[in-house]
Amino acid sequence: MVSNKMLPDFEQELLNVSSQIDEYLDKSKFKDVFCPEEILHSSFHYLELGGKRLRPAVTLFSCGAVGGDPSKALPAAAAVEIWHNFTLAHDDIIDQDEKRRNGETVHARWNREAKENYGWNDVISNRFGNTVGILTGDVQQGWAVANLIPDLYYSLGIDPKIALKLTYQLGFVTLTHLVEGETLDVLYSKTSLANLNENMIQRMMAKKTGALFQFCGLAGAMIGLNTDDEKNHIVSSLSNFAFMCGTAFQIQDDILGITANEEKLGKPVGSDIIRGNRTIPLLRSFSKANDSQKQLIQNILGNRSASRTEVKDVINLIQDLGGVDYAKDIATSQIKTALNLLNSVPDSKFKKLLSSWAEFMLHRSL
Amino acid sequence: MVSNKMLPDFEQELLNVSSQIDEYLDKSKFKDVFCPEEILHSSFHYLELGGKRLRPAVTLFSCGAVGGDPSKALPAAAAVEIWHNFTLAHDDIIDQDEKRRNGETVHARWNREAKENYGWNDVISNRFGNTVGILTGDVQQGWAVANLIPDLYYSLGIDPKIALKLTYQLGFVTLTHLVEGETLDVLYSKTSLANLNENMIQRMMAKKTGALFQFCGLAGAMIGLNTDDEKNHIVSSLSNFAFMCGTAFQIQDDILGITANEEKLGKPVGSDIIRGNRTIPLLRSFSKANDSQKQLIQNILGNRSASRTEVKDVINLIQDLGGVDYAKDIATSQIKTALNLLNSVPDSKFKKLLSSWAEFMLHRSL
Repeated sequence: MVSNKMLPDFEQELLNVSSQIDEYLDKSKFKDVFCPEEILHSSFHYLELGGKRLRPAVTLFSCGAVGGDPSKALPAAAAVEIWHNFTLAHDDIIDQDEKRRNGETVHARWNREAKENYGWNDVISNRFGNTVGILTGDVQQGWAVANLIPDLYYSLGIDPKIALKLTYQLGFVTLTHLVEGETLDVLYSKTSLANLNENMIQRMMAKKTGALFQFCGLAGAMIGLNTDDEKNHIVSSLSNFAFMCGTAFQIQDDILGITANEEKLGKPVGSDIIRGNRTIPLLRSFSKANDSQKQLIQNILGNRSASRTEVKDVINLIQDLGGVDYAKDIATSQIKTALNLLNSVPDSKFKKLLSSWAEFMLHRSL
Repeated sequence: MVSNKMLPDFEQELLNVSSQIDEYLDKSKFKDVFCPEEILHSSFHYLELGGKRLRPAVTLFSCGAVGGDPSKALPAAAAVEIWHNFTLAHDDIIDQDEKRRNGETVHARWNREAKENYGWNDVISNRFGNTVGILTGDVQQGWAVANLIPDLYYSLGIDPKIALKLTYQLGFVTLTHLVEGETLDVLYSKTSLANLNENMIQRMMAKKTGALFQFCGLAGAMIGLNTDDEKNHIVSSLSNFAFMCGTAFQIQDDILGITANEEKLGKPVGSDIIRGNRTIPLLRSFSKANDSQKQLIQNILGNRSASRTEVKDVINLIQDLGGVDYAKDIATSQIKTALNLLNSVPDSKFKKLLSSWAEFMLHRSL
């Protein structure tokens, strides 16, 4: 466990990472590249809404933990944040979400701006919002994979074979996992809870969330060790460490979707219920529910016209039936397994930061 | 001009390119990579609907024309076809098109399959179609940029610096041009014709269509010359050649959207009118129209509830006012300029194929 004494250092390091990433991704460098203006602003929209840069942090810390200079991993750390933003932009259209990080989602913003700036009607503005959202994700995907990762070579002189391997790993391997996870998430949200089991949900989360964290550990370690061998055993330790923490992070995310303070969450509590997301706490509680409780859950889950009271009833039921505690135990055990993977890494400031980061992934309240 | 004697050879070569590409992109190689099944089938959907593989052809011919072995450029040629399919999958959602290549668009297919296979209602099936369409384009973008292009090094041993440069050129430079062109196309379709001019349309087409063809010439020449210098003057000649042909191709596409036989076109004639696309023939005829003709055009353009007769009236008007002939002259002159760029390339079978290809881009009837 992280001592209280350590936390302020870790939080300071997280802020340092944020400012390094934001400085590296200076908007003015891209104003003649991302055109027209809508594409420029929307490509930076989620960055400007905040966020904790947890993916860049584990990339830089992993580089340092294997003895590398973390500043050499900066283009890769920026790439994972932008790549994450690509997936948010597209997922928010797919899930029809309007709010994120206490602000508008990309497509919701351009839907509103189309009405305000051009006076278009609801149907046309909504389509324009989706258009900008789709194209923004496309730009961010390419920006991460084909501009920021190659910058490892073009700006920092890192072996082009390493840059090419990371392009392949993020742009193809991580991508195909992520698309599979997202597709399964959509299909499962329409599948009866009785036909799903925990392994299916774990697999979906591993693809949807774990894979990108896995890449972060892998990229940091490969750059730090100056190797293009993704099977190197220290690279594997760090990528598996980040992967385990990533799935624990997703479980914690699903828990916060049930238990969090709405303002801290940055989006409506219970939106997972209304969308019909299949999560570990939900599935566990459903398996423990009696027939009338099962009926209540099935009536509200995925029901976009459910009232706030009805959603609250389901949230209370999930908590009462022990789903949240059960999920928390799984996440805690995954973090423990992850921390054991760090045994093969020598002690250092960065190893400590990785441990603090792992604990933060589990204990964060937002 | 292409002599009649030459055409059969050229057409045979085009068929050879198609079978090489389709063999290289063997679906069975990807069945454990693109999951679940919806993503596998939709990633190959447009390939399986046919198409002439014009972009792969110019990539391979450009490699041969600079003295390279065209088979070395096969991964890049496959990449440009898949990348083109990514842009089709997303544009078809943006434009809400249901038909392409005499078949269904990706999102229309999965909308229908959702109804048939899962019995979902119209709203949910439509959303699922769009979801699969978005994710399919995402997979294809990454497949092209981060799997096929890196295969130049991993499978064929080409200098990794060349593979990395082509990743950057396709995945970032071409991408940002394309997204700008697509965004302008959408914005222009809602802009009064009186506020647009031919330069604006030419610029939009250069970005939307020319940029990918430009990459094809660039990639073929760089691989053929074994250089990572995209500014090499022979590389520039071939990329500019392909770029000029690409914009001529787009003008010819806009002409065929007005004059073609519907079955050959593979989608409804006049769909450009209904979508409100701003094209050279339209803009030219509008500038020559009298007030009542202008009124007719403005009433029908972008009007999705216009009748077939009304659309036909606008088509006839564009032809009568000389817009088609005018556009044809521009395309012809662009092809002539393009052919002059080949003067710096020594005579060879591949140079002849490039000339035939340029003529085909202009004279094709489908």
